[in-house]
Amino acid sequence: MNNNPIGVFDSGIGGLSVLKQFVRFLPFESYIYLGDTARVPYGNRSPEIVKLYARQSTEFLLEKNVKLIVIACNTVSAVALDEVRKIAGDIPVIDMISPAASAALRATVNKRIGVIGTRATVASRAYEKQILEFSNVDNSPEVFTKACPLLVPFVEEGMAQHPAVKLVTEEYLQELIEKDIDTLVMGCTHYPLLVPMIREIMPNISLIDTGEHASVTALRLLAERGDLVDERNSFMEKPKVQFYITDLPALFYENAAAFLGFEIDKPNIIQLDK
Amino acid sequence: MNNNPIGVFDSGIGGLSVLKQFVRFLPFESYIYLGDTARVPYGNRSPEIVKLYARQSTEFLLEKNVKLIVIACNTVSAVALDEVRKIAGDIPVIDMISPAASAALRATVNKRIGVIGTRATVASRAYEKQILEFSNVDNSPEVFTKACPLLVPFVEEGMAQHPAVKLVTEEYLQELIEKDIDTLVMGCTHYPLLVPMIREIMPNISLIDTGEHASVTALRLLAERGDLVDERNSFMEKPKVQFYITDLPALFYENAAAFLGFEIDKPNIIQLDK
Repeated sequence: MNNNPIGVFDSGIGGLSVLKQFVRFLPFESYIYLGDTARVPYGNRSPEIVKLYARQSTEFLLEKNVKLIVIACNTVSAVALDEVRKIAGDIPVIDMISPAASAALRATVNKRIGVIGTRATVASRAYEKQILEFSNVDNSPEVFTKACPLLVPFVEEGMAQHPAVKLVTEEYLQELIEKDIDTLVMGCTHYPLLVPMIREIMPNISLIDTGEHASVTALRLLAERGDLVDERNSFMEKPKVQFYITDLPALFYENAAAFLGFEIDKPNIIQLDK
Repeated sequence: MNNNPIGVFDSGIGGLSVLKQFVRFLPFESYIYLGDTARVPYGNRSPEIVKLYARQSTEFLLEKNVKLIVIACNTVSAVALDEVRKIAGDIPVIDMISPAASAALRATVNKRIGVIGTRATVASRAYEKQILEFSNVDNSPEVFTKACPLLVPFVEEGMAQHPAVKLVTEEYLQELIEKDIDTLVMGCTHYPLLVPMIREIMPNISLIDTGEHASVTALRLLAERGDLVDERNSFMEKPKVQFYITDLPALFYENAAAFLGFEIDKPNIIQLDK
């Protein structure tokens, strides 16, 4: 039993869709969520800068005595996982890539997997590498990736249901449809808000939500270590989350509620680059 | 580490939607699936008969040295959980009701939960009792149930997308829509095949899949006991499942593939009522 919080960090608010999945499967844990909203988005930045920002976020969470660190961002996971692991030491780190890659391998029947993400995630080839590492080399599925840079700003403008985003998404997905994929990894934490639209465009696809598989991986890891919280809580309480952000951006509360499914209290504004 | 199989039983093929969720989150386990297809459906039968059948299925699985028993049927869970636990002794038993009831409690914001199921499940009031037991008595959500007896035969006829089943489902759900529920428990293992239709009728609902939450509950339980399998397997193998049924019904292979998401090999036909 370990009642320390779980630390979750992201470049901004996208990681709240990951936190939502953690709250679904680990409802009694307490959480510290850190969103680096002053420096978002990371998706087009260089690996060196992303690594620096990831180190600062990790250090912040370690000072809060977290028992587990969740890199709730595909771009940071793709670029800076080793950096984060190095600083975290004995504290386990859950990334977005490996749970989703393993889920995609299980889900695909025709061995043709699509991955959508930011430019940085796609350029890193992190999903291809992880899927190849997990599978038999003789028998490895084909992976087709597509950078979808407009989807994040659309979602953050609250336009996830807008016909314009449907037009753009159809165009992005067309290439993957032509590749006859049967499984699609939503390799960015903003994309779960686009699920109804993606399902309309690709009704028979197996959709992989990175946050969902990360949360189940975390559940397993904590259970095996005997590090889950004591659960004698009330079922009806709001999830216990402390929110830290580096800037209070426009639409913050609206977006947070859309990503999380519940409204949040006033976040703490902090500075990471001191 | 425990390499014994997980035993999953159901009155018929509905439990295959539960097995699908187990394979998703516990892909490396081996499974024994028992479907009592000769005596299906249980949904309108008396509690005494359902208990007798559940005892026979449990005994069959125990003879196969399973490490965990999953009652992959809401009706049997509602009526015969105590019977199964009694016979199972030290072997843990996962039912459909309590993981879903707990998930519904976490998902609801307005504290108005709907439950749909067979006549027997609804008549048992198992969900109301479990939700009341889990929540603060002062603060317990309201639970509204609706028996939907036609949905199982529609799904088994392969008509999950048919306009007729949409008309019937709209009629069934109308009562719950009027009660302003924000969370709907699909309290029958056939209903996950109706998700696209239910989402059309109730686009903003939190939908609870009993098999999904049962599988995560099982993952946690096995992880805490150190009873998960050794995972040094190939990722690309088909899930390891032995199928036992008591009769080979019409449309068996078609339905099995629709419920599971993959095609199954020839099942073993056995007799339970000897």
